Amino acid sequence: MITPNFNYKNLKDSYLFYNISQKIKKYLEKNPDKKLYRLGIGDVSLPLCDEVIKALHEAVDDQSHKETFHGYMSELGAPFLREAVSNYYLHRGIQIPVEEVFVSSGASDELGDILDLFDKSSSALIIEPAYPAYVDANVIAGRKIFTIPSSIENGFLPEPSNNYKADIIYICSPNNPTGAVFSHKQLTQWVNFALKNDSVILFDAAYEAFIEDENVPHSIFEIEGAKKCAIEICSLSKTAGFTGTRLGYTIIPKELVKNGMCFNEMWIRNRTTKTNGVSYIIQKGGAAVFTVQGQKQIKKNIEYYKNNAKIIMKALDECGIWYCGGKNAPYIWLKCPNEMGSWDFFEYLLNEIQVIGTPGEGFGKCGNSFFRFSSFGSTEDTEEAAKRLITLLGRK
Amino acid sequence: MITPNFNYKNLKDSYLFYNISQKIKKYLEKNPDKKLYRLGIGDVSLPLCDEVIKALHEAVDDQSHKETFHGYMSELGAPFLREAVSNYYLHRGIQIPVEEVFVSSGASDELGDILDLFDKSSSALIIEPAYPAYVDANVIAGRKIFTIPSSIENGFLPEPSNNYKADIIYICSPNNPTGAVFSHKQLTQWVNFALKNDSVILFDAAYEAFIEDENVPHSIFEIEGAKKCAIEICSLSKTAGFTGTRLGYTIIPKELVKNGMCFNEMWIRNRTTKTNGVSYIIQKGGAAVFTVQGQKQIKKNIEYYKNNAKIIMKALDECGIWYCGGKNAPYIWLKCPNEMGSWDFFEYLLNEIQVIGTPGEGFGKCGNSFFRFSSFGSTEDTEEAAKRLITLLGRK
Repeated sequence: MITPNFNYKNLKDSYLFYNISQKIKKYLEKNPDKKLYRLGIGDVSLPLCDEVIKALHEAVDDQSHKETFHGYMSELGAPFLREAVSNYYLHRGIQIPVEEVFVSSGASDELGDILDLFDKSSSALIIEPAYPAYVDANVIAGRKIFTIPSSIENGFLPEPSNNYKADIIYICSPNNPTGAVFSHKQLTQWVNFALKNDSVILFDAAYEAFIEDENVPHSIFEIEGAKKCAIEICSLSKTAGFTGTRLGYTIIPKELVKNGMCFNEMWIRNRTTKTNGVSYIIQKGGAAVFTVQGQKQIKKNIEYYKNNAKIIMKALDECGIWYCGGKNAPYIWLKCPNEMGSWDFFEYLLNEIQVIGTPGEGFGKCGNSFFRFSSFGSTEDTEEAAKRLITLLGRK
Repeated sequence: MITPNFNYKNLKDSYLFYNISQKIKKYLEKNPDKKLYRLGIGDVSLPLCDEVIKALHEAVDDQSHKETFHGYMSELGAPFLREAVSNYYLHRGIQIPVEEVFVSSGASDELGDILDLFDKSSSALIIEPAYPAYVDANVIAGRKIFTIPSSIENGFLPEPSNNYKADIIYICSPNNPTGAVFSHKQLTQWVNFALKNDSVILFDAAYEAFIEDENVPHSIFEIEGAKKCAIEICSLSKTAGFTGTRLGYTIIPKELVKNGMCFNEMWIRNRTTKTNGVSYIIQKGGAAVFTVQGQKQIKKNIEYYKNNAKIIMKALDECGIWYCGGKNAPYIWLKCPNEMGSWDFFEYLLNEIQVIGTPGEGFGKCGNSFFRFSSFGSTEDTEEAAKRLITLLGRK
């Protein structure tokens, strides 16, 4: 008799976004004439930039003629895209050879798949609040999970500690949901900790394109020793609006060897077994992001979102509300005022001013009295939401 | 200290296509003026059909305007594509509700990911010769693997037997590499066997579009009881030339419940954890395959390949060489003449008549004296290859 993977039974019900949508639905049924101001979603709203659109159309045309048609792609990624990514790093002074770049269908897919590299007995360390899939993917694999709660006291950027030793360490910086960013010094502490314990850091760099402070690392590989202890998982979802177009890339250094096993070689074997690569069309679109024109155009979109973040931050400043993020990140993480719980605050904003955000509790227990705003909406809606926040919560 | 997944050490070196390309390279270095006739590859050569190209361009345009832009897609597949697939089954008299259809990036990706549903202790049963990834994905997961060798005696369509009991049963029909197809009666035997042993059949239907005999099942769900014991994994790669465009779909019936666990519900949870869905653009292209015009156009392409198969079969008939496949499948599996081993036959064809095929040994030991021809090349090359085969091997 077949034995199903019983670890699924250990998954907690994940009702965050379902609950949000149900509450909104109920509200709109009672108040059909009300317009909502959505600062909750983590999805982009601007269309793909012209350079990407042009490349996508060209690639579709390639697929329509026998002479230019592309069949099976390399499972590791098209050479033109792996090279573009390698050059992107070089441009920032980081040497990543083409063979250490793997093309993926996005960070979310890769974060699930990459765990195949590690034994079930390896434990995972997750800094909370966190993207819920970090936890769930390890529950499905039957791994022991340790969580580090973070807080205002450490600016949601906890230091490593021997109380929380584990084998796979998740670090997301700029962080979802807190928008906090680790400094060079702080990341160095984590790299040294990982080296000392022979752990592997999974560095989620999905939001690196939002960094504006010059001294904030974009990549874990800016830290000495990281190539011996880290895998970096990147995405074009927020960088270039690819949430529905799907493309990412992953860096696995050849120096990353543990117990005699080279993870780069293992991943080559994994990919050639478990995928036939990413769509030619989408890879062509992705490569356009790394051209001079592409970079110019995506930066304009990122500026648009950053301006939204500034509008929200200004409103929170006027209300005297504590927050972090927003500067080097698309997310703003705030302390709910008047000791409110995050779900109470959600209902309060919805009922009083029709502004939607995401309750912090959805990202882990220590997010109970916090709330996430996203800068990915339209500027018009963000401005109106900010005005309403000030009216409701501003110092009288 | 982190423990890598040591199961990778148990993977056999997979040199099949690498060895082929090295041998070809060496030959061309010595014989730079020779043209090769490639009947080896399993990749399509015709471009995407017009209806798909049109849909892809439209979808790219959608991504270029704020009003029509698509961000995150459902992790389970776009409703329009799930519905198109459900209707495709209905058209053939099979009831598959939309909620049992999952969109994937292709059969190859899905065959790797789907194993997440089963415990490591569940064993796998693989009919050889077989697609090498069936074995490798289970080796990576640390599963016990049983193989059933097949042969001319059973037409490469072995019956179930209690000597080979296992939990996960791989069935690929029409088969890669043999081109053999299971009849309704034969599949019923396998379904009954799976039901009796509480096993799950992974039915690889990647080549169903090549079936022409009316009585050959296109889907495992044409067999009574299959919804209680089977998952069907499908692909547009060969059906519509999507090898480099990437799209597939998987059917997991709600009735598939083992040990109290519903695999459909588990897969929903898996997908929402481990992916953010398939590209909107590609799903739009895929949906065009299921339109009336799309079906007409892809059938024309399949006819082109089927005509190639006929040309090869006729040549083999003239040479008096035993083969199977070719009729309901794009592959032809032949017995190497004169007791030759499959690599010797490869070298013989390359050196003597510059025709390339795939040595059967690459698909398992029992393929040692067999050889695969593919019908996916151009008709011109296939015709020339057939002529040369007859000259070399025809009855004198």
